[in-house]
Amino acid sequence: MAEDRPKRIAIIAGHGGLDEAYPPLILATSAVAMEMEAAIFFTFYGLFIVHKERKNRLKVAPVGNAAMPVPVPNIIGILPGMTNMATGMMKNWMKKANTASIDDLLEMCIEFDVRLISCQMSMDVMGIKKEDLIDGIETAGAASFLEYAMDADITLYM
Amino acid sequence: MAEDRPKRIAIIAGHGGLDEAYPPLILATSAVAMEMEAAIFFTFYGLFIVHKERKNRLKVAPVGNAAMPVPVPNIIGILPGMTNMATGMMKNWMKKANTASIDDLLEMCIEFDVRLISCQMSMDVMGIKKEDLIDGIETAGAASFLEYAMDADITLYM
Amino acid sequence: MAEDRPKRIAIIAGHGGLDEAYPPLILATSAVAMEMEAAIFFTFYGLFIVHKERKNRLKVAPVGNAAMPVPVPNIIGILPGMTNMATGMMKNWMKKANTASIDDLLEMCIEFDVRLISCQMSMDVMGIKKEDLIDGIETAGAASFLEYAMDADITLYM
Repeated sequence: MAEDRPKRIAIIAGHGGLDEAYPPLILATSAVAMEMEAAIFFTFYGLFIVHKERKNRLKVAPVGNAAMPVPVPNIIGILPGMTNMATGMMKNWMKKANTASIDDLLEMCIEFDVRLISCQMSMDVMGIKKEDLIDGIETAGAASFLEYAMDADITLYM
Repeated sequence: MAEDRPKRIAIIAGHGGLDEAYPPLILATSAVAMEMEAAIFFTFYGLFIVHKERKNRLKVAPVGNAAMPVPVPNIIGILPGMTNMATGMMKNWMKKANTASIDDLLEMCIEFDVRLISCQMSMDVMGIKKEDLIDGIETAGAASFLEYAMDADITLYM
Repeated sequence: MAEDRPKRIAIIAGHGGLDEAYPPLILATSAVAMEMEAAIFFTFYGLFIVHKERKNRLKVAPVGNAAMPVPVPNIIGILPGMTNMATGMMKNWMKKANTASIDDLLEMCIEFDVRLISCQMSMDVMGIKKEDLIDGIETAGAASFLEYAMDADITLYM
């Protein structure tokens, strides 16, 4: 580990819930603000975070999460409409706390050189094409992620 | 990386299911027992692990988890009462295996100097105040976690 | 950190959905293909990945996942049979993308010396015995994982 290079964080984003989209983007942008290097590798459901139609894709599931701040009984959570309600609640909390939106965070990633990498194999499996994803994203395989991560100081699957 | 300091583990606890509360606490207490340094950074739903009312908050969701050891068909899992039943089952398994409770593990964390840190931004977003959390917890931002983690030997988002 | 040893990845596999079984196995086999050392520590629901009856255990939950590529309304997802349908869909996607099956990936792990380790405490808690698990797996405690991971270059909880 050379001491003359910046500290580095390598993140895999593997989940596609709206509440799961914030943690990798917040950590990566915080890291570059501290002059670290940062990359996020988007795999499987995580690809929805960088999907052009992410507005319709990133949701908060109101069932199967016993820790929802405002608990929704499962019998109610399965009714049509509840997923949209839970998603709206989450967006409101973030706004009240003056937190950046997913779009803001993605813009910050691109502006401050967080490397955004989509997983080629996940795209093949899920039938997602490069043009379905936001501009400024690279596409690579697991080997590329491992090459980057093996010299990182922080590695997280989020 | 100086060789004269102890090995260090930095954990982010981001989930609030009862079954999701054990892994970070077990790893952190095992680490300090091996004379490592350990810190857990509680974000989003993970804050419920260190919430004073965690007994009512940490549950095991009986739906949306295809790997429940005793599988509950989803059609049954959504009935009122099943979340409490699943939570009770988990507690019984842990007891039979002579595993420490969440309360025991938190006490061990404090006694053996695992640093417990609550994420300021998550608290703002979720309307959780410092006095809602257990005594002995610090509050900090993502930058503090990154500072700590960049010199850690093991980093995990759990 | 000695420079004359191979790079190392230490993974904890803690989840038991079919879609959650692929990422740790794909990363570990990719790592050994790059001449890295790799170990996977299977805890809690992750034990189902290496369970002899994994075919009946590893499923994709069609509810509680807002990011399912073909979204299934929760009201439908809870009907009996939908879990099997979602599981079949996932297997088909993987086949179309020419991805190895879980069985193939486990065989590759054993052939190329990925260390597969089952967590003793999780086995006790869940009533899983060594003979329930695939051949070629070691059993160890959290301390063994920490010993291995503290000298790893990449550490992930997946």
